[in-house]
Amino acid sequence: MQAPKLEFWYDFASTYAYLSALRIKELAARAGVDIIYKPFLLGPIFREQGWNTSPFNIYPAKGRYMVRDIERLTAERGLHFRLPDRFPQNSLAAARLALATEEAGCIAAFTHAVFVAEFAEGQDISNTDCLSALVAQLTRTVGLDPAKLLARSVDPAIKDRLKVQSADAVSFGLFGSPSFRASDGELFWGDDRLEQALTWAQTAGRGTNQSAP
Amino acid sequence: MQAPKLEFWYDFASTYAYLSALRIKELAARAGVDIIYKPFLLGPIFREQGWNTSPFNIYPAKGRYMVRDIERLTAERGLHFRLPDRFPQNSLAAARLALATEEAGCIAAFTHAVFVAEFAEGQDISNTDCLSALVAQLTRTVGLDPAKLLARSVDPAIKDRLKVQSADAVSFGLFGSPSFRASDGELFWGDDRLEQALTWAQTAGRGTNQSAP
Repeated sequence: MQAPKLEFWYDFASTYAYLSALRIKELAARAGVDIIYKPFLLGPIFREQGWNTSPFNIYPAKGRYMVRDIERLTAERGLHFRLPDRFPQNSLAAARLALATEEAGCIAAFTHAVFVAEFAEGQDISNTDCLSALVAQLTRTVGLDPAKLLARSVDPAIKDRLKVQSADAVSFGLFGSPSFRASDGELFWGDDRLEQALTWAQTAGRGTNQSAP
Repeated sequence: MQAPKLEFWYDFASTYAYLSALRIKELAARAGVDIIYKPFLLGPIFREQGWNTSPFNIYPAKGRYMVRDIERLTAERGLHFRLPDRFPQNSLAAARLALATEEAGCIAAFTHAVFVAEFAEGQDISNTDCLSALVAQLTRTVGLDPAKLLARSVDPAIKDRLKVQSADAVSFGLFGSPSFRASDGELFWGDDRLEQALTWAQTAGRGTNQSAP
């Protein structure tokens, strides 16, 4: 029998996606669930709602709380946290690169590396030098040509795939990052729902999940 | 030694506050923490942010998701859930009554009863008949005069206390419901943080909590 699947939808600019990215591999392995990495862009979704930046900037009390919340959660989990000087970061280049690494079979490792650089080290992931260094490190491990991967990430085919993936997200009602989507379409939002999403995914294919009471 | 305290801030219109209201008594007792009930009004805070209704109405994808999320969580916890026909409900009269029941020493029971009527039974808590019935039931149990309690709830002193309490909430950065606040000022938002808030409260008075890493 094929392992059940769960889609992990994330924008690289999202602090809460950082929390999930650093634990999803281990939790999914324990649950026997395969993760499908789905980078997408929240910016266009936010703009549709009339927001030109993160709601954490538009609503300062919520933004201050988010930082404190992430500080507490990362401390509990033994993770570093450093908010980059500019928040949110422009995640376009990283998302395109992620799709290129998916073709190369290493999107999980790349996604992990980007989130660590951004939120554990406070690096600027819109910066080409930062991304090149991450790619160089990754390709050394898996034996790929970094220049080819970087070139592929700006190929029109990849650019289109990211647009299509982000439009898909809108079409099934995605509105935040991270989100998780089971094979029956069930949607979960937020790092707080990762465990629940994995449990759901385990039975989604067998049609045995409880619907609303 | 006095038991540690945790403030429970809630707007009666909030679905996630329903989740917390139905489990906070038991969890707090187990943690040895005293809960201080703090009804307040989110409406003025939302209006400050340019919202004239719940964000769950302004952003429909988020609203649909919230309903599904509450359906799943209530099913897991063995609770009923029925969204009232009108959402959000006007929570002003219920909040004032809650402050009157606080004076009478029964705010915990009243708060529980309002949330059950609203979100388990789908009743309209802005309706005077609904509130009168809840008060009648409550006062039968604790031996109070329901007419006096209802009259007290529209006394200028109670109206002012609710205004002051809601202004207090803004002053320490509260932006959503439910929220929890420890005696050292540490703020937690959302039913998902109730356990973390109780753990924090247990040591807040002793100054031994971890600050940011």
